[in-house]
Amino acid sequence: MGGMTSSSAKDLLENGLKLTPRYDAAGLIAAVATHAETGEVLMLAWMNAEALDKTMSTGEAHYFSRSRNELWHKGATSGQVQVVEELRIDCDQDAVWLKVLPQGDGGACHTGQRSCFYRVIEGGKLVKRP
Amino acid sequence: MGGMTSSSAKDLLENGLKLTPRYDAAGLIAAVATHAETGEVLMLAWMNAEALDKTMSTGEAHYFSRSRNELWHKGATSGQVQVVEELRIDCDQDAVWLKVLPQGDGGACHTGQRSCFYRVIEGGKLVKRP
Repeated sequence: MGGMTSSSAKDLLENGLKLTPRYDAAGLIAAVATHAETGEVLMLAWMNAEALDKTMSTGEAHYFSRSRNELWHKGATSGQVQVVEELRIDCDQDAVWLKVLPQGDGGACHTGQRSCFYRVIEGGKLVKRP
Repeated sequence: MGGMTSSSAKDLLENGLKLTPRYDAAGLIAAVATHAETGEVLMLAWMNAEALDKTMSTGEAHYFSRSRNELWHKGATSGQVQVVEELRIDCDQDAVWLKVLPQGDGGACHTGQRSCFYRVIEGGKLVKRP
C-alpha cells in the first residue's frame, strides 16, 4: 500500500475497528505465535487472506507455507495444532500476534525444539539455549 | 534462498552455531520485539544486515524502515530506545526475536500505545484492549 496513505485513511487504519489487513505484494502478512501461558515466542510465519480467515473461523492457527506455496494447517501432520486463545493485529495492520496453546507434544518447531528460537546470538555466534 | 537447500546445508542452518541470516529478496529479515520483563509483544519490524550489525554492536535495537527506506535507530527521535537484553534467531535464520527494555516513556508504538498490538480481532472486528 506504500507510504502515500492519506491522513484520514491512516487514522482509520490505526484507530478504526474494521479489520483491513494490509497484505504485501505476495499477498502475505507476518504472524508471530507466542505460547498463551508462558509468553515464549514460538515461531514467526506468514498468513494470506485464506489462512487468516481459516484461523478466525476454526480457532486453530493456519499459515501460508512459502516453501510449499500452500495453505498450512499447523499441526495437521505433526499433531502440533495451535489452539488460538487470542488474535491481535498491529497498528498498520500488516502483522498479527497469536497467543496459542500448542497441542500434541507441546512444541512448535519442525526441528523438535519447543520454540523455533532455540539459539541466542552472542558475540556474533549462536548458542543453543532453551 | 528457496527450497533447494541441500540436507547438509539445512543441517548447518538449523543446528550450526554460525550466524547466517537468510535475508529475503529485499535484503530483510523479520524482527519481533517483546518486553523483556512482561513478555508482551511490542512490535514487528524488519532488519537488513546493517540494522542487525548495529543492534549487535550497540545493544540497542536498530531496524530498517521500509516506509522511509533507511536504517532506523528505534527511539532516536521518540526516546523509545530499546535496550536489548537478549537476541535470538529462528531455525531457518530468517527471523529474529529481541527481548528489550523500552526506554523513554516505556512505549514502542508511534500511536502512543505501549505495544503496536493494541487491538484484538474478535468476530471479524477489532476491539481495543491493553
